[in-house]
Amino acid sequence: MGHRHASRRQILRWSMAAGAGVLAAGETDAAASARTLGAPLGPYGERSPFEKGIRFTRESRTPETGSSFTPIQESLGTITPSALHYERHHGGIPSIDPSVHRLVIHGMVERPLSLSMADIRRLPSVTRTLVLECGGNSAGEWAAPGPDVQRTYGMVSGSEWTGVSLARLLEEAGVRPGASWVIAEGADACRMMRSIPLGKARQDSLLAYGQNGEAMRPAQGYPLRLINPGWEGNANVKWLQSLRLTDQPYMARDETSKYSDLMPDGKTRIFTFEMEAKSVITFPSGGQMLPGPGLYELTGLAWSGQGLVDRVEVTVNGGETWQRALLQEPRLPIALTRFRLPWRFDGREAVIASRCVDETGYVQPTREALIAARGTNSIYHYNGIKFWRVRGDGTVVHVGA
Amino acid sequence: MGHRHASRRQILRWSMAAGAGVLAAGETDAAASARTLGAPLGPYGERSPFEKGIRFTRESRTPETGSSFTPIQESLGTITPSALHYERHHGGIPSIDPSVHRLVIHGMVERPLSLSMADIRRLPSVTRTLVLECGGNSAGEWAAPGPDVQRTYGMVSGSEWTGVSLARLLEEAGVRPGASWVIAEGADACRMMRSIPLGKARQDSLLAYGQNGEAMRPAQGYPLRLINPGWEGNANVKWLQSLRLTDQPYMARDETSKYSDLMPDGKTRIFTFEMEAKSVITFPSGGQMLPGPGLYELTGLAWSGQGLVDRVEVTVNGGETWQRALLQEPRLPIALTRFRLPWRFDGREAVIASRCVDETGYVQPTREALIAARGTNSIYHYNGIKFWRVRGDGTVVHVGA
Repeated sequence: MGHRHASRRQILRWSMAAGAGVLAAGETDAAASARTLGAPLGPYGERSPFEKGIRFTRESRTPETGSSFTPIQESLGTITPSALHYERHHGGIPSIDPSVHRLVIHGMVERPLSLSMADIRRLPSVTRTLVLECGGNSAGEWAAPGPDVQRTYGMVSGSEWTGVSLARLLEEAGVRPGASWVIAEGADACRMMRSIPLGKARQDSLLAYGQNGEAMRPAQGYPLRLINPGWEGNANVKWLQSLRLTDQPYMARDETSKYSDLMPDGKTRIFTFEMEAKSVITFPSGGQMLPGPGLYELTGLAWSGQGLVDRVEVTVNGGETWQRALLQEPRLPIALTRFRLPWRFDGREAVIASRCVDETGYVQPTREALIAARGTNSIYHYNGIKFWRVRGDGTVVHVGA
Repeated sequence: MGHRHASRRQILRWSMAAGAGVLAAGETDAAASARTLGAPLGPYGERSPFEKGIRFTRESRTPETGSSFTPIQESLGTITPSALHYERHHGGIPSIDPSVHRLVIHGMVERPLSLSMADIRRLPSVTRTLVLECGGNSAGEWAAPGPDVQRTYGMVSGSEWTGVSLARLLEEAGVRPGASWVIAEGADACRMMRSIPLGKARQDSLLAYGQNGEAMRPAQGYPLRLINPGWEGNANVKWLQSLRLTDQPYMARDETSKYSDLMPDGKTRIFTFEMEAKSVITFPSGGQMLPGPGLYELTGLAWSGQGLVDRVEVTVNGGETWQRALLQEPRLPIALTRFRLPWRFDGREAVIASRCVDETGYVQPTREALIAARGTNSIYHYNGIKFWRVRGDGTVVHVGA
């Protein structure tokens, strides 16, 4: 049952379900707000004080290293507000003056370059709307399914990025024969370093300075971030200061001891850059509550590091049957895709979940299938189907609780 | 010359133009920021203190009524940050508690309705990226071209809106035969009221509560705004509290004495809802300065209330010849469209401008053509071509200065 084909009868059920009443006497009187002069217009806006959504951060004695999680249970549409974009920092957020920041491109190149931000912002620019997901998003799900969508699937965000093509700058510098990797380094206190195959850098990497229509926020890499579309967040090096061409990877901390997984056979999966198809229901989700039986719009987010979301299938009976959700258009490759499905909650317990299928035909796996393939030592790249239990009283918990 | 076809030779000219130097000794040393622990992660992000762009507001003894202008000269991509969305208020920004706010739908309907925000947010939702432009944007250009792009063309912004279809709610209420208008009223101190033809309401009007991935900001109508895609900002009633079905327009202040124009023949144009195709170069624009001769990316924004931007043509010789700019994809109907064109500034004065052609074939007119058609008493719906003069020394002024 798609929204566009909802009949009159179906529509009528919505407001009855929602408890919308007929008009009471006096209800067309002006609201209290209409009897008081409002606040003046101003130079820079804020959100309403009635809106309380924040990133979840764990209490820590070293808050410069850690993660914060986007409140995706409150997300609307397909963009993440920059103020709520998830974070994963390893040495804190540096304060960088863009007028002195430089990017150097060196190593196996004909013409080593040193570029100011003014140099970079003068070059031909491109804009792309992309999902960014931490390689460690949903890491806790390997051990046991967690209680709410923010803390379990919230290290994912979507932004409109603007910057310059890395391929263009590499042509400028002149890559020497034999070079096959680009070592990207950030200007933060841990000097985050990641090795990027030259093929990716030439394919679609961006040097981004804009996010959602303005300069990128400090927590996302101000003034310059390497964006590798579809690849784990860590490989999208923030506060980018150096790109060094080499003939081998650097084997940096964050691609050897971290951001790699020990497989059951004793070997380690490394350089697992690409994020595979994933989705999760954000409403109703763990910790939320349905006020009673009736019609609801079930909704969530889907994405794939490999291109377009082809379809999202939803179950409301614990996986027995699946139906197609409606996808928000325009779908964009490697971008957050909103899905929606009308659902009648009849007051009996229901187990709900979504699974994403991307344009390559890849199907989001179950948790059991993931563990069967990768064992129990994995930390990264968890993309299992997430089940929520809607209890008869309308409370929503994770399956496992 | 499109970006995608830039040859190696062309690319080489970019960095030379930009003055990017080869690497100096010691330049690969870590930046100062890499030697200090950064700031902790946190619940709600802010922009960099190095970013200073703000909305322009005129000093006023009654700042509750007036306009603020988006700094589009600094805009990147196609979205406007919500904090910088232009404003036009007539009674200040009301503070509304969404838990008590209600929308009433009454008048010529079978079933008058009173809906809470919870009722509305439970209904099937849709997301649309749309441009919003004040009917009075560029009003000063009728008299004389103004000095910078923010104050002359800055009452335009682009957002991703999420909400419910008004058509769906009207079906719910049951429109009575003979009804032909919807009177929309806001809950602000001026009780902003506009008459909307029923045909529009049934076609594509939205009741929006989401903006750029979160709840709409108070300055844009929190918690609920009527969005009429492609229509002048004023008809997109903020803080929406009432929709009354009638068989005639209300003839409210803001559709009679305001938001209407006296024509040369003594008649008044009223109910001029639709915003026609328009564009403006945001870089380089009045008040900016090019540091010297060389290659630059000329860029700006184009839009049309009537659908897709079909093409944007740019002149760099005062209108003698025009060439097609590259348009950022995906283009969306009735949305801000970014255009770009590489341009070599040779140190001689140049007069530059853009003109938008939309999918209906409508061509953005010259200022002279507008005045010839509408005379000299008009205030609203100015969409003339804007010319900038780049002087030999790199300073940019408006044509007329």
